[in-house]
Amino acid sequence: MTLKRRQFIQAAAASLATGSIAAPAIAQSQPEIKWRMTSSFPKQLDNIYGTAQTFAKYVAEATDNKFQIQTFSAGEIVPGLQALDAVTSGSVEACQTPLNFYLGKDPTLSFATALPFGPNARLQYSWWHFGGGAEIINGVLANFKAIAFASGNSGTQMGGFFRKEIKEVDDLKGLKFRIAGLGGQVLARLGVVPQIIAGGDVYPALEKGTIDAAEFVSPYDDEKLGLHKVAKYYYYPGWWEGGAMLHFAVGLDYWNKLPKNYQHIWLQACDASNNWMLGRYDVLNGAALKRMIGQGAELRGFSQPVMEACFDAAQKLYGELAANNANFKKALDSMVPFRTEHYQWWQVGEYSYDTFMIRMRNKVTAG
Amino acid sequence: MTLKRRQFIQAAAASLATGSIAAPAIAQSQPEIKWRMTSSFPKQLDNIYGTAQTFAKYVAEATDNKFQIQTFSAGEIVPGLQALDAVTSGSVEACQTPLNFYLGKDPTLSFATALPFGPNARLQYSWWHFGGGAEIINGVLANFKAIAFASGNSGTQMGGFFRKEIKEVDDLKGLKFRIAGLGGQVLARLGVVPQIIAGGDVYPALEKGTIDAAEFVSPYDDEKLGLHKVAKYYYYPGWWEGGAMLHFAVGLDYWNKLPKNYQHIWLQACDASNNWMLGRYDVLNGAALKRMIGQGAELRGFSQPVMEACFDAAQKLYGELAANNANFKKALDSMVPFRTEHYQWWQVGEYSYDTFMIRMRNKVTAG
Repeated sequence: MTLKRRQFIQAAAASLATGSIAAPAIAQSQPEIKWRMTSSFPKQLDNIYGTAQTFAKYVAEATDNKFQIQTFSAGEIVPGLQALDAVTSGSVEACQTPLNFYLGKDPTLSFATALPFGPNARLQYSWWHFGGGAEIINGVLANFKAIAFASGNSGTQMGGFFRKEIKEVDDLKGLKFRIAGLGGQVLARLGVVPQIIAGGDVYPALEKGTIDAAEFVSPYDDEKLGLHKVAKYYYYPGWWEGGAMLHFAVGLDYWNKLPKNYQHIWLQACDASNNWMLGRYDVLNGAALKRMIGQGAELRGFSQPVMEACFDAAQKLYGELAANNANFKKALDSMVPFRTEHYQWWQVGEYSYDTFMIRMRNKVTAG
Repeated sequence: MTLKRRQFIQAAAASLATGSIAAPAIAQSQPEIKWRMTSSFPKQLDNIYGTAQTFAKYVAEATDNKFQIQTFSAGEIVPGLQALDAVTSGSVEACQTPLNFYLGKDPTLSFATALPFGPNARLQYSWWHFGGGAEIINGVLANFKAIAFASGNSGTQMGGFFRKEIKEVDDLKGLKFRIAGLGGQVLARLGVVPQIIAGGDVYPALEKGTIDAAEFVSPYDDEKLGLHKVAKYYYYPGWWEGGAMLHFAVGLDYWNKLPKNYQHIWLQACDASNNWMLGRYDVLNGAALKRMIGQGAELRGFSQPVMEACFDAAQKLYGELAANNANFKKALDSMVPFRTEHYQWWQVGEYSYDTFMIRMRNKVTAG
């Protein structure tokens, strides 16, 4: 367990810097610096892309506009799926991206964002900062000349919109479901045929029945696509993203050359924008969920047998990946006991309190 | 709903500054400034007092040591319960304190920390920043020449150690329970005799049976007092602090004179230290809970009838307080619908995911 994350990050940045020598502390502590940050997200996802914009604003405010970060939405510089590559090549200094986009490079990167059936948002944060997560992931990212900083979380996402109900495990067979990543690989083992479709093309595909279901994010973003108008069953929870953490990744050479005080401002602005994203989602999602239910969306929870079949398939997949990838094994051996131990305290503290408050919710309304 | 908290904070600071004129932007953006921050907590509570120390370190790191905050534990300058008074009088620039310590000044301040049966930690954060909480509380604090910033949370606390089991509401009658604040006032309505005893005196009082029960914080801090050795029933949840938020309060005159970039660094360091406190508790509490159970502590959940009786007594108390205090009514009218609406989304998202993960916890261990 690492409790001193800042010391780690500096040590890591120094030790990971392949071939570069750490810049000496410079006399002028507030040089004018302009960086570019390419995002994997479009402007329409205003709470996610907005997190990058908010971060840039925070850094500028903390430095009297001396350190300026210009943000670019997906496609303006490179496509969303190539954000990390742009950092590796050095064509931009930084990116905003979900690291699980790059599981083709190394599936271990999925742990950075959200392992299906991984920790919730708060435990993902504590695993990253105090449970060894940052060290493991940044060890992998060093191969791509990058270092990543946690800078946002969606909270538990929704399971998506389905044209038909999923009542038992057999209902998954042949289901054409728009889902990517490890979640898609888990579902494929149960007969789902994962579909890769860009956000803007999902609505017509679901309307025509070209696909049977589609997952996106959470109520606030889902509502924008209008999918509840063409597929009324709105499933929960999105167990493949129980607490999806976003990152800003920075080229190691750029990071190491940053004045120390700018590094610290960067780290603190990461926490501030992390909280901005999650806190704002927490007020936006509730209202959007109510609106969609008002327009006919029907909430459905995945049944316990369906969830357990997915859980079991996930464990098998992880076992196979760990057998072939030492990084993946290291991350799995770190996260599984962490999740197990800390969900025990969660059950006693947070969960017992939430249970009562949820039960009393209607009484509160009535009172 | 206020989504632009920084704009608000600046506007509030300007409008609340009674008699002082906002300082013009100064040419030198990194002046050397030394502030003193008095804490309401002793050094022994290393995760709480440590949050103030961590914050001071973050601010120093972000400003190349130009803005230095010296922290003092409870009693070094003023007693813990007088931290806010020291800010009001201007004898220190800032303090770390739970604002519910000052419910004698105005019970509305309880909303800033934790209203019994209030939101959990994440929803308390979103109420503060995006639900109007900061505006309401800082409106009250202007009467005490202060402005407060959210800077930590304990998560749901424990209910404390009891010498005898509490099985029904009648078991509360005559119970000498070490508990302060609105939680104590709620319990008094059910026959509890709240006891005010300093942390260091709790162990002998509980051992001798001078008191029947005592609540403190959460496993990590509770373990230090060793109470599980003299009162084996360890109750949950601490419904009077479902997500206790701590604050740094600053004298308004001092705040308004701070250079703008230092104000922004302060705000971002608040978020970073907020996350440090909660994230670190999340890894420390689980381990401490396991150790205490190993030493004989027996976990007990408050029964539904006991919880509901407390809940009902709380609502009556709030109704009476609101009838006599316009600030309290304003805060209650803000928080209750916020909590009601957002626990709906919480139930669908976070809670359904947590339910499954907790159910599978042992399977995870076995697998």
